[in-house]
Amino acid sequence: MSDNKWVYAFGPKNCDGDASMRNLLGGKGANLAEMASIGLPVPPGFTITTEVCTYYYDNNETYPQELKQQVLDCLKEIEQQTNLNFANAANPLLLSVRSGARASMPGMMDTVLNLGLNDEVVAGLAESSGDPRFAYDSYRRFIQMYSDVVLEVDHDLFEDILEDAKQSANVEEDTELTGDDLKQLVIQFKQLVEQESGDVFPQDPHEQIWGAIGAVFKSWMNQRAITYRRLNQIPVSWGTAVNVQAMVFGNLGDDCATGVAFTRNPSTGSKEFFGEYLINAQGEDVVAGIRTPFPLTKMSSGGNGRSMEEKMPKVYKQLDDVRRKLEIHYKDMQDLEFTVQKNTLYMLQTRSGKRTAEASVTIAVDLANEGIITKKEAINRIEPESLDQLLHPTLDPNAPKQLLIRGLPASPGAASGEIVLDADTAEAIANQGRKVILLRVETSPEDIHGMHAAAGILTARGGMTSHAAVVARGMGRPCVSGAGELRIDIEAGRVFMGSEELAKGDIITIDGITGQVFKGQVATIKPQLSDAFATLMKWADAERRMLVRTNAETIEDTRVAREFGAEGIGLCRTEHMFFDADRIVSMREMIIADSKEGRSIALSKLLPMQRGDFISLFEIMSGLPVTIRLLDPPLHEFLPHTDEELADVAKAAGVDMETARARALRLAESNPMLGHRGCRLAITYPEICEMQARAIMEAAVEVSKKSAPPIPEIMIPLAATAREIEICKEIIDRVAQQVMKDFGQKIDYLVGTMVELPRAALKADDLAGLAEFFSFGTNDLTQTTLGISRDDAGSFLRDYSEAEIYPVDPFISIDVEGVGMLIEMAAQKGRKIRPNIKLGICGEHGGDPRSISFCETMKLDYVSCSPFRVPIARLAAAQATIKLNS
Amino acid sequence: MSDNKWVYAFGPKNCDGDASMRNLLGGKGANLAEMASIGLPVPPGFTITTEVCTYYYDNNETYPQELKQQVLDCLKEIEQQTNLNFANAANPLLLSVRSGARASMPGMMDTVLNLGLNDEVVAGLAESSGDPRFAYDSYRRFIQMYSDVVLEVDHDLFEDILEDAKQSANVEEDTELTGDDLKQLVIQFKQLVEQESGDVFPQDPHEQIWGAIGAVFKSWMNQRAITYRRLNQIPVSWGTAVNVQAMVFGNLGDDCATGVAFTRNPSTGSKEFFGEYLINAQGEDVVAGIRTPFPLTKMSSGGNGRSMEEKMPKVYKQLDDVRRKLEIHYKDMQDLEFTVQKNTLYMLQTRSGKRTAEASVTIAVDLANEGIITKKEAINRIEPESLDQLLHPTLDPNAPKQLLIRGLPASPGAASGEIVLDADTAEAIANQGRKVILLRVETSPEDIHGMHAAAGILTARGGMTSHAAVVARGMGRPCVSGAGELRIDIEAGRVFMGSEELAKGDIITIDGITGQVFKGQVATIKPQLSDAFATLMKWADAERRMLVRTNAETIEDTRVAREFGAEGIGLCRTEHMFFDADRIVSMREMIIADSKEGRSIALSKLLPMQRGDFISLFEIMSGLPVTIRLLDPPLHEFLPHTDEELADVAKAAGVDMETARARALRLAESNPMLGHRGCRLAITYPEICEMQARAIMEAAVEVSKKSAPPIPEIMIPLAATAREIEICKEIIDRVAQQVMKDFGQKIDYLVGTMVELPRAALKADDLAGLAEFFSFGTNDLTQTTLGISRDDAGSFLRDYSEAEIYPVDPFISIDVEGVGMLIEMAAQKGRKIRPNIKLGICGEHGGDPRSISFCETMKLDYVSCSPFRVPIARLAAAQATIKLNS
Repeated sequence: MSDNKWVYAFGPKNCDGDASMRNLLGGKGANLAEMASIGLPVPPGFTITTEVCTYYYDNNETYPQELKQQVLDCLKEIEQQTNLNFANAANPLLLSVRSGARASMPGMMDTVLNLGLNDEVVAGLAESSGDPRFAYDSYRRFIQMYSDVVLEVDHDLFEDILEDAKQSANVEEDTELTGDDLKQLVIQFKQLVEQESGDVFPQDPHEQIWGAIGAVFKSWMNQRAITYRRLNQIPVSWGTAVNVQAMVFGNLGDDCATGVAFTRNPSTGSKEFFGEYLINAQGEDVVAGIRTPFPLTKMSSGGNGRSMEEKMPKVYKQLDDVRRKLEIHYKDMQDLEFTVQKNTLYMLQTRSGKRTAEASVTIAVDLANEGIITKKEAINRIEPESLDQLLHPTLDPNAPKQLLIRGLPASPGAASGEIVLDADTAEAIANQGRKVILLRVETSPEDIHGMHAAAGILTARGGMTSHAAVVARGMGRPCVSGAGELRIDIEAGRVFMGSEELAKGDIITIDGITGQVFKGQVATIKPQLSDAFATLMKWADAERRMLVRTNAETIEDTRVAREFGAEGIGLCRTEHMFFDADRIVSMREMIIADSKEGRSIALSKLLPMQRGDFISLFEIMSGLPVTIRLLDPPLHEFLPHTDEELADVAKAAGVDMETARARALRLAESNPMLGHRGCRLAITYPEICEMQARAIMEAAVEVSKKSAPPIPEIMIPLAATAREIEICKEIIDRVAQQVMKDFGQKIDYLVGTMVELPRAALKADDLAGLAEFFSFGTNDLTQTTLGISRDDAGSFLRDYSEAEIYPVDPFISIDVEGVGMLIEMAAQKGRKIRPNIKLGICGEHGGDPRSISFCETMKLDYVSCSPFRVPIARLAAAQATIKLNS
Repeated sequence: MSDNKWVYAFGPKNCDGDASMRNLLGGKGANLAEMASIGLPVPPGFTITTEVCTYYYDNNETYPQELKQQVLDCLKEIEQQTNLNFANAANPLLLSVRSGARASMPGMMDTVLNLGLNDEVVAGLAESSGDPRFAYDSYRRFIQMYSDVVLEVDHDLFEDILEDAKQSANVEEDTELTGDDLKQLVIQFKQLVEQESGDVFPQDPHEQIWGAIGAVFKSWMNQRAITYRRLNQIPVSWGTAVNVQAMVFGNLGDDCATGVAFTRNPSTGSKEFFGEYLINAQGEDVVAGIRTPFPLTKMSSGGNGRSMEEKMPKVYKQLDDVRRKLEIHYKDMQDLEFTVQKNTLYMLQTRSGKRTAEASVTIAVDLANEGIITKKEAINRIEPESLDQLLHPTLDPNAPKQLLIRGLPASPGAASGEIVLDADTAEAIANQGRKVILLRVETSPEDIHGMHAAAGILTARGGMTSHAAVVARGMGRPCVSGAGELRIDIEAGRVFMGSEELAKGDIITIDGITGQVFKGQVATIKPQLSDAFATLMKWADAERRMLVRTNAETIEDTRVAREFGAEGIGLCRTEHMFFDADRIVSMREMIIADSKEGRSIALSKLLPMQRGDFISLFEIMSGLPVTIRLLDPPLHEFLPHTDEELADVAKAAGVDMETARARALRLAESNPMLGHRGCRLAITYPEICEMQARAIMEAAVEVSKKSAPPIPEIMIPLAATAREIEICKEIIDRVAQQVMKDFGQKIDYLVGTMVELPRAALKADDLAGLAEFFSFGTNDLTQTTLGISRDDAGSFLRDYSEAEIYPVDPFISIDVEGVGMLIEMAAQKGRKIRPNIKLGICGEHGGDPRSISFCETMKLDYVSCSPFRVPIARLAAAQATIKLNS
């Protein structure tokens, strides 16, 4: 308990604390002390530590006994430094009392300004300042704030009286009220307090100070603060500090001012002093927007003479010095608050400034180039997720919008287009050059062409990792999923969004970053990747240990991923290649065939198409590894839904409708996720595996003729036993040998397996006897380990999140305790049997920074993610390496 | 390689082997040696070891170089002992050559008799025996067998010639052919051999012997043998031995005979000499059924003078002595083959006799009571699964039957009844006192009342652990599931079974032990449990460490289980209680309600019903633990399928049809197994958990007034995190405290969880901090660990079994390597945190003997299984304890 030291002074003359004491003094207190200690002009004050807050709640809302005297001592010190007197009408000292927690909790807790005023002191202040209007305005503001915060008198009641006063005085603005008006208002305010609280407004400034301190501590447990802490995972045990500081006034005349500033531009990151100020005003006036503030710099004002640089050149110069000093001192862009009282600059706050993703990158790279931080620090400064904003078009924040409904922010970016309710129409309209948003209850693999054609996708069901979400992210299409208030009446072509009724053809805009859906067209901004971005990624690549691959199977996705720096394909989902109109019929023919011969005929039609697919991918990923997963989904996913389509298929397969229908029905499953899929297909229909192995090897041979040979990594999905791998590997190796012999060309290839079932992880030593690589399929591994179908989780995951059952959505970030334990077991067991086994991750988690950090601790060889997440993964992997080695 | 000793002699004079050398000599060879060594009359011979078979296949089908001389030496020994000469017309020695593997492989491999005959020797034999018919009959049989087995000449070709010969001779039976007829036949047979094989029939007896030995070794790799080994899990590496033995003849006149016998009655187990014999016949005649054999004992023949006891009293006496000697020696009922040649008894085989389950129990108990074996040995003698036959009605094996189709033997017992296609009709017709078989594509919880009303259940889809199978076993109803050839046309009321078309109302019979479905009514036998059964169970109970509970929720099931010896309920599935007509409406009302208030109203209607259910169970299980699982299945399982029903529900819930339909639709899930179920229901709808906790505690209070208080064990299903248990336990404890306070009655209860998700097992230490017991829900744990939906596994599990991916169906017997590893982890981690944590298993595996054995090694406290499996589990648990302690 720090030798019973509960209070830390700060100010130009004496400073007990510094910036490193954030835990004890809170962010604001620590920074005030730090600024004072490096010689910046900070009004003197003191901080009551967070330990007092803890003591207060541990001891039935009482204070440590030493506290009172320590506060009085500090108060005396302030009086001495300011030459003012607290609780004295002659030269009165007024105080501000503010909360200040370890982590920033903006607006969550309470503040009292102008404390120390009473009926007597206000008169003295009027006299000492020579400005009665200022004195009574300060008093009425104090009564209002103190009564609201400490005495719990409703804030609005004061506003009502203020409104009445303005009407009586026949004025519009508070500032137009005279000193006498305000004096009268003070009387009314005090009456209101007595009426509401049953007691007179406290006239003893010492009583006021303890009232305010108590209110700050109490505010730590108010509902807003509790909710904010829960949402931001701030432990209740941290507590808040209380900062008591001499008031300075920016509203004592035209040689006074107040303002807020960023040391660099928080939107673009460019190196310019960015901020606003108001002459003769109090800080809250800038924030409240009652008067329009002016820019700080001449450049920003366009030289109209209103900037601080022009109006108060000397103080501005002083402030600009402070800016430089703070940036070098804190090694980061700062967010400042200042007040000028009679041409004297006072710093009231500094903290790390919030900024856009673009600014974040620019500032970090600039700071590193300026030698203020290291490259590693620059890398660590960027929240990888935030890069998403840079890669996708975003809504123009200034455009007018009408919000219809909200869903989940499933795939970033924004898009506008006509409402379309089915994939075929989406494709048809898009082919006419019109933009469409595809609306579905949920999407299935059959919608792929429509999703590809659409500018964006909106679904009523499904979570962050639903089919729609995964595929949209893979394609880089904006997507809002699981919009519960969306109802679709396909027959009638009508759509209900909340209370609005729309029809197909109506224009809507979706924002995949926020999950919002707007009526009509909302303007978007298409981002350009900056030089700073390129520099940062270069630095990150130099640091990271893990490779970054991509999950891709289309030419477009593969190309995008390669441009974003993907170092190979970690997951090519071959099934996605079968949904094109010219292929689906052959695919269905194979499924309906129901005999090995029938299937072989259909497969022979698919072979050249598959080979062509692989040739394209191998060319783009020339010389890089390409992991190809054998056919994975249950066959019924490919089946037609209409009788017409079924008739086509029956004809192609040479069976009657009855047989085709019976076969289709027999394929229906209760739990397709756990059904006849993955390598189970290869075991029951080895000819499918054979065809795919042949297509891969023939494509590899073909590409080797012209460019660097690809490294096919053939992946067996959903294996749970070594025997399954043995059977599939035998087929693959046999076909591979045959192709290599027939073409007289050797191809280096690997055969491995996806580890996506708990049993595969448990028996990883067995599997590693045959598998040359493991790729952790964490989507399915999460589903099976936790027993949660991601498609169905929407109905309870929100309750689960609120009940804090899973700290983060386990489909977004790996459940390290559960799923992570299996990954660790599998990695250890796999390496024990095959020390050089290649390990990677290809689930959605491969693009999630937290999960990537976990992968680094597991020493995986690579992560694989959707194309648009490749830069995020590169940065996250670099951060993970730095973290592990630091 | 046993000092290069490849051949072991046996016979009255010298015996190299004994019964302990089964692995080296095969079962037959070892037992022949053993019989000879204890002084029983065994014709001399020798065994070529299984190691020669291994050598043969390891060395490109060649023999060890020492083999030839060792065989010749043994042959000489036989000649000396028999005073006969091999390959010599004067007093010729004939040989039998038979296979004999380590494990019995009946009919799987080849046998040659009468080896050593040729044109010259046969003439000598005719002379020495004074019976040309005998000699030529022996020769033609030899040619036929040898040509079939060694020369691969089709057996049927010989039969054709034989038929022609009988027609020419104008006789019906082989035995009516004269010596001359047979002599002629031999000529024709030899011509056939030359014609088919391109070579004359080998006249050199030494060539013959090596031909026959080679054929036996080759037969180890024939298709029948390979298939048999696969089905019975016999490793190919075991190999077969070859037994060469002097022939003895039971067909040399009326002082000769041959027969087979069991030392006790293999059907009933009663202590009587049971067998048949034929005078003047060869062994194969008894088996082939060409002549009707007579019983051995006077008692069995009814004293008609034809029994061996009457006809050959002296030899019979000798045989009866052998019988006693063998039983005491082998300590088990034996299956014997013997031949009497000119009043001399020869023993040709002894082995443990196959028997019915009933006989098995009686014999084991009798042998123990006779002091031949110990009680523990008696317990170990019984295959627990076999008890199933004793507990359910079975088809009369003698009744005529017409097989329609086959499915899986899902629930034992047999039943006949009218075909009914839906549950309601099943109930209605059953209420009229008529027997029905309920046919469904697959069953759902809504069919329960129909399944209960039905005499048996037949489904087209679903495996051994499908809903139909599990529920039927639980109810003790016979069930055949997954009958792939069954097609149901519900609209037309027609049913297709293979090529047969039937209609509702037609009578069929199902056999749940074999999975067969028969046309019409087939007579059944209702078993009576014997005194021996009761004795055996008493002995087993004295040995076993684990308790045996039952999975039951109806009064009937609970009562049956209690009668079968269940020591509590291990799993009461509360959801099954909600399907009765008077409850389902309230249940649906709750589901449709969509607000906490609406749900509470509906739940208040369900409370008294649930309380009543629990009172009944607690009364039957008075003083015993009753584990009650909170509501588990996804709510949509309870929803109505017709508009009419939905309208009822909407009315009850006070909502319009549109709302009801929307709510119903929203509950549909892609993978219900991994959906909104288990404790996820309690987390989202805590009021359901509250109602159930209240019903349990109020029932416990009620029952405590009259009888021994029950020990409710409240089980939280599908938990994966400690937090879920914390939330549910808080509700349960709160309600329990309230009820106990309100009624002034203390009830000892436990709160625990089902461990049925991999994560629960991985985090068992966390869970055990709160859970007072774990019950392993191995059905779901298997589904999630292996990623296999048991309802959908039918489409590939057969291929999986054939490919030996899982050695046994993991839904029948615990996958020890995978799921077992999780159970072990969970048990260890759970006990680390809570050393006295109660551990049990309540999945279907709780009734599977292999799995029970695994549970014993895990030291679980109890197993729980369906009522009809309780005796099986009691026995299996006893065996497991004995095994682990031995």
